[in-house]
Amino acid sequence: MSKEITSREKDYSQWYNDLVIKAGLADYSAVRGCMIIKPYGYALWENMQRQLDYMFKETGHSNAYFPLFIPKSFLSREAAHVEGFAKECAVITHYRLKNDPDGNGIIVDPDAKLEEELIVRPTSETIIWNTYKSWIQSYRDLPLLINQWANVVRWEMRTRLFLRTTEFLWQEGHTAHASAEEAEAETRKMLNVYASFAEDWMALPVIKGVKSANERFAGAVDTYTIEALMQDGKALQSGTSHFLGQNFAKAFDVKFSDRDNQLDYVWATSWGVSTRLIGALIMAHSDDDGLVLPPRLAPLQVVIIPVYKTAEDKQKIDSKANEIRENLKALGISSKYDDDDNKRPGWKFAEYEMKGVPVRIAIGPRDLENNAAEVTRRDTKQKEMISLDGIANTIKVLLDKIQQAIFKKAKDYRDAHITNVDTWEAFEKLLDTKGGFLAAHWDGTAETEEKIKEMTKATIRCIPLNQPEESGNCILTGNPSNKRVLFARAY
Amino acid sequence: MSKEITSREKDYSQWYNDLVIKAGLADYSAVRGCMIIKPYGYALWENMQRQLDYMFKETGHSNAYFPLFIPKSFLSREAAHVEGFAKECAVITHYRLKNDPDGNGIIVDPDAKLEEELIVRPTSETIIWNTYKSWIQSYRDLPLLINQWANVVRWEMRTRLFLRTTEFLWQEGHTAHASAEEAEAETRKMLNVYASFAEDWMALPVIKGVKSANERFAGAVDTYTIEALMQDGKALQSGTSHFLGQNFAKAFDVKFSDRDNQLDYVWATSWGVSTRLIGALIMAHSDDDGLVLPPRLAPLQVVIIPVYKTAEDKQKIDSKANEIRENLKALGISSKYDDDDNKRPGWKFAEYEMKGVPVRIAIGPRDLENNAAEVTRRDTKQKEMISLDGIANTIKVLLDKIQQAIFKKAKDYRDAHITNVDTWEAFEKLLDTKGGFLAAHWDGTAETEEKIKEMTKATIRCIPLNQPEESGNCILTGNPSNKRVLFARAY
Repeated sequence: MSKEITSREKDYSQWYNDLVIKAGLADYSAVRGCMIIKPYGYALWENMQRQLDYMFKETGHSNAYFPLFIPKSFLSREAAHVEGFAKECAVITHYRLKNDPDGNGIIVDPDAKLEEELIVRPTSETIIWNTYKSWIQSYRDLPLLINQWANVVRWEMRTRLFLRTTEFLWQEGHTAHASAEEAEAETRKMLNVYASFAEDWMALPVIKGVKSANERFAGAVDTYTIEALMQDGKALQSGTSHFLGQNFAKAFDVKFSDRDNQLDYVWATSWGVSTRLIGALIMAHSDDDGLVLPPRLAPLQVVIIPVYKTAEDKQKIDSKANEIRENLKALGISSKYDDDDNKRPGWKFAEYEMKGVPVRIAIGPRDLENNAAEVTRRDTKQKEMISLDGIANTIKVLLDKIQQAIFKKAKDYRDAHITNVDTWEAFEKLLDTKGGFLAAHWDGTAETEEKIKEMTKATIRCIPLNQPEESGNCILTGNPSNKRVLFARAY
Repeated sequence: MSKEITSREKDYSQWYNDLVIKAGLADYSAVRGCMIIKPYGYALWENMQRQLDYMFKETGHSNAYFPLFIPKSFLSREAAHVEGFAKECAVITHYRLKNDPDGNGIIVDPDAKLEEELIVRPTSETIIWNTYKSWIQSYRDLPLLINQWANVVRWEMRTRLFLRTTEFLWQEGHTAHASAEEAEAETRKMLNVYASFAEDWMALPVIKGVKSANERFAGAVDTYTIEALMQDGKALQSGTSHFLGQNFAKAFDVKFSDRDNQLDYVWATSWGVSTRLIGALIMAHSDDDGLVLPPRLAPLQVVIIPVYKTAEDKQKIDSKANEIRENLKALGISSKYDDDDNKRPGWKFAEYEMKGVPVRIAIGPRDLENNAAEVTRRDTKQKEMISLDGIANTIKVLLDKIQQAIFKKAKDYRDAHITNVDTWEAFEKLLDTKGGFLAAHWDGTAETEEKIKEMTKATIRCIPLNQPEESGNCILTGNPSNKRVLFARAY
């Protein structure tokens, strides 16, 4: 191996960092908590963006762009929101630098102090609802279905590449509706869009559910979530969709006149996923040799590597490789022919394994004679000699197969890690051993949830949407409960 | 007309603002100098982005993402750069808000002061070259061809929607090379990409040239520019490409070992275009009835409007309109059927003229009987009865024709407004009357350029790349000159 990475077993967290850095997805920056998304990582994000954007537009949404800055006073308008978001944020207090008259380089110009400080958006509900006030007058202006692709900043104390960074990229949908029912339907519709994207594109099985009050978005009436399980048994919240009721409409005085000319406050939703999804993707599928990427999102789907000794052999392989690439391209499959002379085939094999390229084709002179090539799947490492006749079609089928296999593997793991637990002893023990989701009864109070979190670091990830009613007793207090909820330690 | 806009003749500047607001491209925000890009304006930007991104990738560039924040000290590293960019910028001094103990809402927490202030990026050379230091060791790491789509902030005192806003969206390319020649070639290549995009997609004729030292990017050795002419005779800088020499490599100590194992500083370029291009697009083509958009970038290319009295007629038109839309879609043409009952055809005609939709199709019951529809071009307002047989193909041809016609009209105007001027008297007079580009001799000194700017508000827009040598005398000082340069008042 050209680059060594720590094994999952030895140090899962270090394995993750090694992967991100050595596969060339991201890098640390000179700014505390901010990361650099490198070309390979950004290409992955572009593929995710493209599909999500398509799904948002198919469901009737348009993109728009709102200011990066939010006046400090806006945050205070919605009581719960300010508690959640005004704490750790980047505050702009001045708008000019100047040369220090004492010759100490450049300093903040004290004469350029803002009358009201600006906050770098941690999320855009406030600036957007302040705008919607002038855009919405009547039911004819509704629904208003808008999405924004943007960067946001939350001053996190402990950061991890992709999973938790001070600045991150995301999309935030902000919709306005004439009724609670319509807004709730939108909230669930977008949760389903996220779940489909996670499962069909990221090959990431997710559980759809509702958050408990403790874990709700600051300012929401209800927060829906998709929760995924990582290979270390910890959960990762992968997308949230919020029913905001009339909270922001009231905070920003956004009313509409309905068909009967009655004034009422507008109903709202917001929903978002971020570059955090890249972290989920990495942790759900990858192994000790590097990334395992789902073919539908991989920046590079197929790599072709020549194995040769003479220039004559090389020439023949070149020509066959080009032909294969043409045929792959015609099927919409991205490929690269890596004939870099400075690196040996073995080095390249390891490199593209590290990068998670789903399929590798190796071609040598003997293979050409046999009209075949060695095709290796990244997920299982299985090698197979494949006929060169119609190899592009064979690979198209194989890519689909890999996509399904990755999903199935993650789903089998996830399903095997949802455990019904009925005693506190088992609850504590399982968290420390097996991990995963623990389906347990809970008395429905914030106090109990808080206590469990303090005692075990486990939180309620969600109350699954399809959870059957079942009478039982709270795992901690023994008080009656009518439904199990999913607990887990989480990222 | 449903919405009135000021005529160009009456008040060009108000005409522009009216257009932006009433066509629904953008809106003012609660944050000084920041705008909201509305869905229609953002759809235009997405179309521009998609094509530019394609062109960047075709020329070998990859996208990446660097932090929004720049440590204050980074700006000081390059002497010219700090002069240009450290002046008016958003400065982050704190990272937390808290509840005021005296009950005055939320305040900046004085305990959360940053050790070093952060600047919201006005451009990213410094943070990127600080990163390149760890990415570049050898000639094998070069060229490094990276682009970033991002928001940037420059604290402008006087702002105008799209043309000059505190926050704007742009792309910034940052490339690293092993030789000056290669970097210079890249600088010119990207200038050509911008020029092709402007002319072929925006239908905006541009003049390619080099900036004088006064107008150079802060930190560049040479700044290349494309300059366009607006309908009021003022120029608009539409894109710049900078040859940065080794300035940033020296400032951030970025060296590489060449093929002979000799260490040298890396050569750099940077280049960018922004949402300002939307302002150029509006001002170059639009008229007193609204936007005129080039078909290749228009968010909506064709609108179909039914004109009917009875429900029976409506039904027949519906079915024909759907058929036309299907056929247009198959040709890759976007269309909308506006059968909103609440608005009259005349209102809709005006509305889509305002929005600059290139082609309008109106269909009434008599038209159906004649197997024809009334097709109106937005640019010339010409109406024509077109046979419904193969109408989608006819419209495809028409859209191309409109694209060419808009370009030709803008080019004819521009060409008619490049005037050779040889006396100071004529120079001053033409600026106040005809406007446009004045091709005049200049003695090559910054002092003369500065003086001309003070006296007339005209600046040197560029020294055109193809400008012939010609001996003459400076328009102001009479000193010898070997080439005309282009002066203009500019946005």
